[in-house]
Amino acid sequence: MAVNLSEPKFLHPVEGVRLGITEAAIKGPGRKDLVVIALDEGSRVAGIFTRNAFCAPPVSLCRERLAASTPIRAMLINSGNANAATGAGGLADAIETCAALADELGCPPESVLPFSTGVIGQRLPLARMRAAIPNATAYAKADGWLGAMRAIMTTDTLGKGATRQVQTSQGKVTVTGIAKGVGMICPDMATMLAYVATDARLTAAATQSALRDAANTSFNCVTVDGDTSTNDACMLMATGKRGTQDIDESHADYPIILKAIREVCTELAQAIVRDGEGATKFITLEVGGALTESEARQVAYSVAHSPLVKTAMFASDANWGRIAMAIGKAGIDGLDQGTVSIALDDVALIEGGQPHPDYVEARGAAVVSKSEFTIRIGLGRGNAQTRVWTCDFSYDYVKINAEYRT
Amino acid sequence: MAVNLSEPKFLHPVEGVRLGITEAAIKGPGRKDLVVIALDEGSRVAGIFTRNAFCAPPVSLCRERLAASTPIRAMLINSGNANAATGAGGLADAIETCAALADELGCPPESVLPFSTGVIGQRLPLARMRAAIPNATAYAKADGWLGAMRAIMTTDTLGKGATRQVQTSQGKVTVTGIAKGVGMICPDMATMLAYVATDARLTAAATQSALRDAANTSFNCVTVDGDTSTNDACMLMATGKRGTQDIDESHADYPIILKAIREVCTELAQAIVRDGEGATKFITLEVGGALTESEARQVAYSVAHSPLVKTAMFASDANWGRIAMAIGKAGIDGLDQGTVSIALDDVALIEGGQPHPDYVEARGAAVVSKSEFTIRIGLGRGNAQTRVWTCDFSYDYVKINAEYRT
Repeated sequence: MAVNLSEPKFLHPVEGVRLGITEAAIKGPGRKDLVVIALDEGSRVAGIFTRNAFCAPPVSLCRERLAASTPIRAMLINSGNANAATGAGGLADAIETCAALADELGCPPESVLPFSTGVIGQRLPLARMRAAIPNATAYAKADGWLGAMRAIMTTDTLGKGATRQVQTSQGKVTVTGIAKGVGMICPDMATMLAYVATDARLTAAATQSALRDAANTSFNCVTVDGDTSTNDACMLMATGKRGTQDIDESHADYPIILKAIREVCTELAQAIVRDGEGATKFITLEVGGALTESEARQVAYSVAHSPLVKTAMFASDANWGRIAMAIGKAGIDGLDQGTVSIALDDVALIEGGQPHPDYVEARGAAVVSKSEFTIRIGLGRGNAQTRVWTCDFSYDYVKINAEYRT
Repeated sequence: MAVNLSEPKFLHPVEGVRLGITEAAIKGPGRKDLVVIALDEGSRVAGIFTRNAFCAPPVSLCRERLAASTPIRAMLINSGNANAATGAGGLADAIETCAALADELGCPPESVLPFSTGVIGQRLPLARMRAAIPNATAYAKADGWLGAMRAIMTTDTLGKGATRQVQTSQGKVTVTGIAKGVGMICPDMATMLAYVATDARLTAAATQSALRDAANTSFNCVTVDGDTSTNDACMLMATGKRGTQDIDESHADYPIILKAIREVCTELAQAIVRDGEGATKFITLEVGGALTESEARQVAYSVAHSPLVKTAMFASDANWGRIAMAIGKAGIDGLDQGTVSIALDDVALIEGGQPHPDYVEARGAAVVSKSEFTIRIGLGRGNAQTRVWTCDFSYDYVKINAEYRT
């Protein structure tokens, strides 16, 4: 079902990062569901997490440990169980599994970050995870990216990975990332997780700001259903194996590396939408002419989340009335419909709040029948703009989400 | 498909109100699609309209005419065409059709209010409407409520009406209302329109405040898909035929009449949800323990609009993880998951942010298998509360909205 998406066949290793996978019988027998990412000493790690108030214990622990600035040496990821809504017991479980991995690697327990994705409200199978961790660690290897990419999947139909190499003043730098998630975001098994690594020698501050910058134009621009997981996390690791100079935000190499990180994040974020639950179309929303970027985003998300717009797109129906409705309900103060324009790719539908005189339905229908197209909205009141990616809303979305646990 | 809903067989006439219907070939041949509501002199009229910035010309005209305080003598309603996104031409059409009805009735054109529901972006068939208006006027009658109820339907599967009679110090007062709409609200053919009339002698201010009060606990508490129409309107007419004293908000009869108006509005609002597009379940959301009522509403709507919650309910899956997720993403500042509780009817699922020790899935499943149940959410941080009605999200929602124009 995924829209114009295929699994990567190769991902460049990143020096200083080893990945190991194993079975801990969390997802079910015979399925890889535990991943260890081991980092060499000196790596810088930044993270961005869900804003959902019902965030899971592993998310709280990640936040706490990153805030404490202890150097991070490993990440422990399990699929099949989200360790969410598990309270103090769930927090203790996350601490204990991290400690077990720290023992294996010979690093302080505070140097390990936990991540969980899967069903909510059930405790982790501690004994099975403890037994499995040495196995994952023993087989950790630099070219373990493709295996890890698949082991973190839950309802994903395809693994999601992206990789880039760029020339800098200090030699060739690699950026490689993997992600999972098929909604933004299903709380059961479809948490969005993303792990991006580079061997560039980014400072801690530059790592943090590169992640925030790249996420703002990638992961923060995608939506499948407007729901936000309890466990979302997006991590950037910089191992510093390339070159001899630290790269801060003012270094000449920074924009080159940031661009590569952005591209990897954008490819991963788009892959999540392309594999969106039940998606048959990949839709780009461009909103311009807004007073502020936040206003542009408000309009873009109002359209991207409207079930009526999404079902019309599924039906290849260029139903601009629904798009106009979704713009109008976005809650923009003083919006004047008389300055609003709507186009599908380069076909103008609405100008000045009214149907464009040249518009005929067949032209709009030709655009929305394609598997990828852009909805362009002009508000005609300012210069701010934004871009958001989403998918349509099909029978299969209902099917997947209605039948998931039954 | 409607959930526990049947069409009323009888609606009490309201003295001072006559309703006429006819065919203007707007919806299609052989279907009633034009309604005239004629009011005796001295009637007080109040209206509440969509907040959608893409509001339709008839909505703008209604607002303007009500603000000018010209006594209202008639309403002209058509189904099949929303006269929305039609700009200055659409406004001229609304003015002209109102003038045609005013001519028939011998009242000033500013005394007529227009309402339209149907497809967006097409001009009204003026000539056919002008030709039809005398017919609707000629046959207008006090017991025309049931016919009008059906003539304003679009994708509704059943007509929606409610009626009450109550004793006041000035004799028996009648409240009768009709409504249409099957989403909150599909912009094509499913605008919500509601017309409620009473023969009570409410002052203009009391009419306005009774409508606002009743709408706040009825029409403003329902949601099907979170989309808001360009044409929504809810009207209250008080003909003043009963009694001799004007009834303002301090009059002893006011609470008695308000209660009847509330009951009629609540029955109509619930009927809209029961007939929600593709609905198989009628769900009440109760949110308590909030700091403010607005915070409670924010949580209630976050849950009521979540496609993941709605598809789980369709599947009779007591998926409290999705309910917790939707509470968490509501954007409540400083919400502590440790004080949150969730119950389905009287079955406790979550206490203090964690699964209730006595909870077993079969008990939750037994509740959500029913066609009507309540999701109770406690935030544990204050005393404010709210109640919202919604429905589930089924294959048929997608089907109805994907296939509507194709």
